[in-house]
Amino acid sequence: MSGFKTFEINEPLDMHLHLRDADMLKLVGPLTSKTFSGALVMPNLVPPITTKEALLSYKQRIKEACKNDQFEPFVTLFFKNDYSYEFLKDIKDEIIAIKLYPAGITTNSETGVSSMDIEVLRPTLESMSKLEIPLCIHGETNGFVMDREKEFMPIYESIAKAFPKLKIIMEHITTKDAIELLDKYDNLFATVTLHHLLITLDDVAGGMLQPHLFCKPIAKTPIDRSALLNAALKAHPKLMFGSDSAPHPKHKKECCGCAAGVFTSPIALQVLTQLFEKHNALENLNAFVSLNAQKIYNLKLDKKTIKLVKKDFVVPAIYEYKEERVVPMYAGETLSWSLED
Amino acid sequence: MSGFKTFEINEPLDMHLHLRDADMLKLVGPLTSKTFSGALVMPNLVPPITTKEALLSYKQRIKEACKNDQFEPFVTLFFKNDYSYEFLKDIKDEIIAIKLYPAGITTNSETGVSSMDIEVLRPTLESMSKLEIPLCIHGETNGFVMDREKEFMPIYESIAKAFPKLKIIMEHITTKDAIELLDKYDNLFATVTLHHLLITLDDVAGGMLQPHLFCKPIAKTPIDRSALLNAALKAHPKLMFGSDSAPHPKHKKECCGCAAGVFTSPIALQVLTQLFEKHNALENLNAFVSLNAQKIYNLKLDKKTIKLVKKDFVVPAIYEYKEERVVPMYAGETLSWSLED
Repeated sequence: MSGFKTFEINEPLDMHLHLRDADMLKLVGPLTSKTFSGALVMPNLVPPITTKEALLSYKQRIKEACKNDQFEPFVTLFFKNDYSYEFLKDIKDEIIAIKLYPAGITTNSETGVSSMDIEVLRPTLESMSKLEIPLCIHGETNGFVMDREKEFMPIYESIAKAFPKLKIIMEHITTKDAIELLDKYDNLFATVTLHHLLITLDDVAGGMLQPHLFCKPIAKTPIDRSALLNAALKAHPKLMFGSDSAPHPKHKKECCGCAAGVFTSPIALQVLTQLFEKHNALENLNAFVSLNAQKIYNLKLDKKTIKLVKKDFVVPAIYEYKEERVVPMYAGETLSWSLED
Repeated sequence: MSGFKTFEINEPLDMHLHLRDADMLKLVGPLTSKTFSGALVMPNLVPPITTKEALLSYKQRIKEACKNDQFEPFVTLFFKNDYSYEFLKDIKDEIIAIKLYPAGITTNSETGVSSMDIEVLRPTLESMSKLEIPLCIHGETNGFVMDREKEFMPIYESIAKAFPKLKIIMEHITTKDAIELLDKYDNLFATVTLHHLLITLDDVAGGMLQPHLFCKPIAKTPIDRSALLNAALKAHPKLMFGSDSAPHPKHKKECCGCAAGVFTSPIALQVLTQLFEKHNALENLNAFVSLNAQKIYNLKLDKKTIKLVKKDFVVPAIYEYKEERVVPMYAGETLSWSLED
């Protein structure tokens, strides 16, 4: 299976992306729109996206920043317990999912839900189920950092059981437990990031401390990574690529008390191609990075095909725009695949 | 048991300390010698301390830097497989222990032992056993970061069994497993740091990433911390206080790829008093921080009694000397106990 000189990805999709706003959006937006046909954009701005007006305005800012008609930003709404059916019905055509954050669990999630009690969530979830709006969840408890996702599994189960017609996406899963849960409920799906296919806690804190690999959920054990990688390589039909690429200014990553997030947008397709080639699984990459998501979200896209060539690509040490400076994963390292010029 | 206004510690001992060299030694040495009667000083300089000449010279530099006759630096020798019996016999009166590092396991340990095979270690260990020189070990494998100490337990066991007359000190233990092993072999002892009594991985990487709490071995789970704290609070007779206070220049802690080590020397006694008071265990603090070590190492000291008073102490944000700048644990925070003026 070796010997590939070029490889094509049709309609690549990043189903979990942070584009931020203002100059940071202008820096990172084009880095995604250049290579992806579409992306599910997270709503955890300050303040989060909770109104139609804010949603449409953000979508417009993204389109202006990306300057690319061959890219579709799917902006999500920030989950709240008190959305009315009428509000959701009205906004339905503008979104393909709503994102739920437990309060305080990650960057800009302070106004997330303070209880995962089914009865508290029920009104909004019933409306979503009726309107067929998928629910994306950042599934972590506030327990011990290595157990937070595992501890959330019963909550995923209870929602999956209580709302069997609601599509639930376990976002950026990091554990073997989550992979195993995928096959237990028809209405459970998941995204997995690039970095969780590649790193464990060893890479973050096993040698020197590596702030640019620090993220939430934190990278777990070799057993967990192996389970995630195996599912991705076989393009498990309920698993989608979602980079969770999360730019933070350089100074907020390399200071006392650094922010969580790995920035992978400009290298995602190259690294995925390299990884799938290494494991003789290139024939499954299109499903993992596009077809699975198209099926799960009922998307029809005709935006672009990305051609990659087997040629060294030295990852820039930094991406900059005005005052914004972001360090990507693999900064300064050489990848074996490049985007075609 | 509350209501203490003052508390006295007789002959406080720090049985695991990094003093470094040159200006850093001049900065941190006096911060330990001010409050401790003695300290077991680690030999992982560049190059490490492997000759009598280097040892005596380092001891002299420490004494000059500390400028305190009421402080005794016990400098350790860096373990090597090829020390002769004659060499060890000659150096015996100058040391109270030899420190073994698996190669590359922590700061400046590159020239440590590359195999923990008993037969490889046997010549030096047999001489040490005959000469009654205790062996201090940094007990970590190169496995997954959360499992490194646990994986080392069989190695401790095999050495303890093979050399029943050799005193073996498991340094800076971080796990329940190590605490449990203490009671299994008469010749096994341990040190525990201040920070491992206080923090878990949650404090390092559960919220923002905290480089100043990043250390090797890395802080473990709440269950582990609880086991360590319980053993310390009851002054388990085989457990000694060893701060592992490990200063790194500020810029090496707050950069991309930060160094491992928590700097606690100037706050250790105040925080220990606060912690033992909180758990109604002040009557055991003298054993934990002095008497246990005196018995295990056969020390006779008549240096100092430290009086602490129940009075707020605001920890300095930084300690500086010339170009050296070190950030202590609890920088800028307020402790409830101070050293008497």
